Amino acid sequence: MNNLPETVDHIGIAVHSIEERLPYYRNLLGFTLTETNHLPHQQVKVAFLSSGDINIELLEQMGDGGTVARFLARKGEGIHHFALQVDDIETFLKELNGKNPFASLGPAETGARGRTVAFLDPKISGGVLIELCQR
Amino acid sequence: MNNLPETVDHIGIAVHSIEERLPYYRNLLGFTLTETNHLPHQQVKVAFLSSGDINIELLEQMGDGGTVARFLARKGEGIHHFALQVDDIETFLKELNGKNPFASLGPAETGARGRTVAFLDPKISGGVLIELCQR
Repeated sequence: MNNLPETVDHIGIAVHSIEERLPYYRNLLGFTLTETNHLPHQQVKVAFLSSGDINIELLEQMGDGGTVARFLARKGEGIHHFALQVDDIETFLKELNGKNPFASLGPAETGARGRTVAFLDPKISGGVLIELCQR
Repeated sequence: MNNLPETVDHIGIAVHSIEERLPYYRNLLGFTLTETNHLPHQQVKVAFLSSGDINIELLEQMGDGGTVARFLARKGEGIHHFALQVDDIETFLKELNGKNPFASLGPAETGARGRTVAFLDPKISGGVLIELCQR
């Protein structure tokens, strides 16, 4: 492939309460809160924090139906996914799905911070949820 | 603080079998295997894979006593930790532990790839295991 991921875009962490967890990242580790948002489509509230090139996304469930709610119920708070930046998400997804038709969970769509994102299917990665993300 | 983390060094993933999971990262996602190693002290076998600036560490338990074995027993395969690069780990740890004496799990020591590493205590982060790492 000529279009490989080159950078970790962010790390997503499922939390019961963003408000309760923010001080750990801001006050202890020195991260800066850059954005908070509601994503009703995914039934989550998100907060982005950064330090240098590092971006952390805290994900809090809104309602019981979303993937974050299911993750919290099954595994408890913890690292939920990581996101890899690709330059051309459509081409990369096409190459992946050409190699394995079950590679992605669906087509690319607009996600947090206006990025174009797609998720790879954790069923074929051993439970690891990887997001692809194009700025 | 004047010594904040600026880069994600790597993402650590607990797996039942490195051999079984390697094809996902190498053949499907296009990562390159850069190193395999045994860390008897932590009772793990590790494999490092890279793509651009992204580094993934696969962790397979050796024996039943280590933290990876406990993680696999409790949560199953999945993202185990992430590591943040700091320029001066001793100074950063001292600042963290000055703010919260329970911040780190222990002093800095030599970890995989000869890096100086320390782990932060997941009990105060809501179950998130963060490694600090100085190249």
